[in-house]
Amino acid sequence: MPKQKKRKLGRGVAIVGGAMSYFGMYPDKTSRDLMAEAYTDALETVDKGIDPRDIEALYIGNFTADLFEGQGHLGHIMADWLGLAPRPATRVEGACASSGLAFREAVMAVASGMYDVVLAGGVERMTNAPTENVQDYLAAASDVPFEVDQAAFTFPGLYAAMGTAYMARYGTTREHLMHVAVKNHQNGALNPRAQFNSSLRDIMEQRKKRAEEKGRPIPTWGDEFDFLSDDSVNPAVAEPLHLFDCSPVTDGASCIIVAAEEVAREYTDDLVTVAASAQASAGPFTTWGGDITGIPSARIAGRDAYEMAGVGPEDIDFAEVHDCFTTAEIMAIEDLGFFEPGKGAFGSAEGLTSRDSDRPINVSGGLKSKGHPVGATGVAQLQEVWTQLRGRAGDRQITHKDLRLGLTHNVGGTGGTSAIHILERK
Amino acid sequence: MPKQKKRKLGRGVAIVGGAMSYFGMYPDKTSRDLMAEAYTDALETVDKGIDPRDIEALYIGNFTADLFEGQGHLGHIMADWLGLAPRPATRVEGACASSGLAFREAVMAVASGMYDVVLAGGVERMTNAPTENVQDYLAAASDVPFEVDQAAFTFPGLYAAMGTAYMARYGTTREHLMHVAVKNHQNGALNPRAQFNSSLRDIMEQRKKRAEEKGRPIPTWGDEFDFLSDDSVNPAVAEPLHLFDCSPVTDGASCIIVAAEEVAREYTDDLVTVAASAQASAGPFTTWGGDITGIPSARIAGRDAYEMAGVGPEDIDFAEVHDCFTTAEIMAIEDLGFFEPGKGAFGSAEGLTSRDSDRPINVSGGLKSKGHPVGATGVAQLQEVWTQLRGRAGDRQITHKDLRLGLTHNVGGTGGTSAIHILERK
Repeated sequence: MPKQKKRKLGRGVAIVGGAMSYFGMYPDKTSRDLMAEAYTDALETVDKGIDPRDIEALYIGNFTADLFEGQGHLGHIMADWLGLAPRPATRVEGACASSGLAFREAVMAVASGMYDVVLAGGVERMTNAPTENVQDYLAAASDVPFEVDQAAFTFPGLYAAMGTAYMARYGTTREHLMHVAVKNHQNGALNPRAQFNSSLRDIMEQRKKRAEEKGRPIPTWGDEFDFLSDDSVNPAVAEPLHLFDCSPVTDGASCIIVAAEEVAREYTDDLVTVAASAQASAGPFTTWGGDITGIPSARIAGRDAYEMAGVGPEDIDFAEVHDCFTTAEIMAIEDLGFFEPGKGAFGSAEGLTSRDSDRPINVSGGLKSKGHPVGATGVAQLQEVWTQLRGRAGDRQITHKDLRLGLTHNVGGTGGTSAIHILERK
Repeated sequence: MPKQKKRKLGRGVAIVGGAMSYFGMYPDKTSRDLMAEAYTDALETVDKGIDPRDIEALYIGNFTADLFEGQGHLGHIMADWLGLAPRPATRVEGACASSGLAFREAVMAVASGMYDVVLAGGVERMTNAPTENVQDYLAAASDVPFEVDQAAFTFPGLYAAMGTAYMARYGTTREHLMHVAVKNHQNGALNPRAQFNSSLRDIMEQRKKRAEEKGRPIPTWGDEFDFLSDDSVNPAVAEPLHLFDCSPVTDGASCIIVAAEEVAREYTDDLVTVAASAQASAGPFTTWGGDITGIPSARIAGRDAYEMAGVGPEDIDFAEVHDCFTTAEIMAIEDLGFFEPGKGAFGSAEGLTSRDSDRPINVSGGLKSKGHPVGATGVAQLQEVWTQLRGRAGDRQITHKDLRLGLTHNVGGTGGTSAIHILERK
């Protein structure tokens, strides 16, 4: 395809508020309840306060309340439930990238001149569905006739195929993957709203303690890696992916408020702006030219994002990436140019992505530990980066380096959609 | 709520191409097949031709392929299927207004400066679903816990309640409604791509002929109104709505290509621009303040659209409105200010909306006769208005008056979302 022109927005867009609900298993909460939590908390984060009537439009990222709750048309539901009707409300869907796309539409709506202040939310209610149905619902994010009906892939199976190809090419082992899980759980332990607000070591100790209390044989794991290597506690889901390689099924919502840069100072003097917003698509594996060791749409969107922001991977101070599986984080940090192809797994094992490294990855805990309510994930990533850039992340704040540029990497399906944003502290 | 600022786009947006697939029952065609038809035909309508590689992004309006086909994440599916990957592709959902909203996002994406040329499509595959399921799927467009679970409404039941309230207040009869059906079928008879490409008189004559051929008693209907009054051919669906008051279940797709006004002349010298794009939301009936004889979100979006275009209802030359039921057309023409409240039904019966009137309504056949593949309807309306404004509508071209401004009125659910656009011939 011919080279596209350089992307530029008609006017600057800033983030002025944002929050996520508690992520976890909340079988009694509907999408509305979750969204209302994220929204009311987001209003509280606006430094100089905001009159909800200033919000001129809503974009709601949601993968499939249709299947999970029998409820479509979620835009108007949320406008009504949040007290924002008759404001325009649009549901945006791109599987697990739904709210990354919702944020993108909010940014363009402001840049277009149509609105000055817009809400971008994301939500998914998942844990109420029977486990056997969840797999089918998630499979609707792939190319169903070609990948599911004909090839009999499950959703983890598709990522497992990518992981297998990656490991075969680069000689990585399951232990490399475990480092990603251990790190993200360590980070999630510092995030009070994470679904797994505990390190894997804590989970391991809890298991030992429970065995002791119940008079069962006490396991003899030495460290987290022994624990992860024990198939009885960490069974295979789809080889090489085991239980602790996979992000969980989660209920949750997220919310961000964006404003035209020219009005943003009415809400805060601590400005974070959108330096880049990029998105790309792909078909199923069979269209990828024989290489499934990375995600083409993420590479393209990453390239476009760097070009739009006028920066390179070396300028990014930290990132939230789409670690729906441990392998996905490794591919993400390569696709984004943080590591050479094949070096991401080794780099992760060497601690080059940990919270005290030069470029921390997923300090929120990532999808792995924070949880992955699919439609809410994109905006939750953006909210984390915004919070870190402003130095307001509490116990999990990155403190060993100055933060100017943060990146979010949000993937839908098995790479069918990638949305990448770069935020900049002014 | 406080008065909002006057809406203005950062740069002008024009339509340079558009088409709809044949609407009807196509059980062997998937959403992809339907979308590919609309897309390839849309490319053909670009006066000076277009290289598909010029299309920089896609917006796909779809209500719920999740439920109808078990397929979510439709953006990337279509980008791949149309050969447009890796272009960004986003599914937009607002129930029956899904592609009205998709068009709106395409317009704002161009106005924002992010893209110069963008595709807005709409699609729904419906007739493959078992009839008993279709009602449940459509109900997902309403507020399910409050309207369906608690109040036991069906989707036609909700519109029937509105119709009953309207008829009680204004003293209208079922015969007034029939005029809408008769007119829209007359119009659809001129539209080769309409699902019901025949007038009700033709349908009536066919029924008589079939009876004759089969040796059954020949019915003695005198005119279309006798036919519609016969409950054996026009049974009640939800009183006061009978079968011929309802739009059908339809498979179909639609496609439009928009471009920044500054580049549009590369594609055509016959410019139609977007003079207004407005949208509004509402909660369920219980939030409407006791009046269900019109749709509040349509009134608000209509007012906003007129304000944005700097025109009034009297300036609109013709319109495509959301006649999912005959009553809905009557309310639409009142909500849009074409008729005073309570006068739309009488006006319709007097022929004031017919194709040779001062302000023809639904010359395409409308949802009633053209068909209503819900996610495709909004863009199909826009494509009709664009085609009429350019004088390219063939047998159904409006010829008795000059056309400068055309309006589309696209409603999601029972008024949860309304999207209204005004197009202008330059």
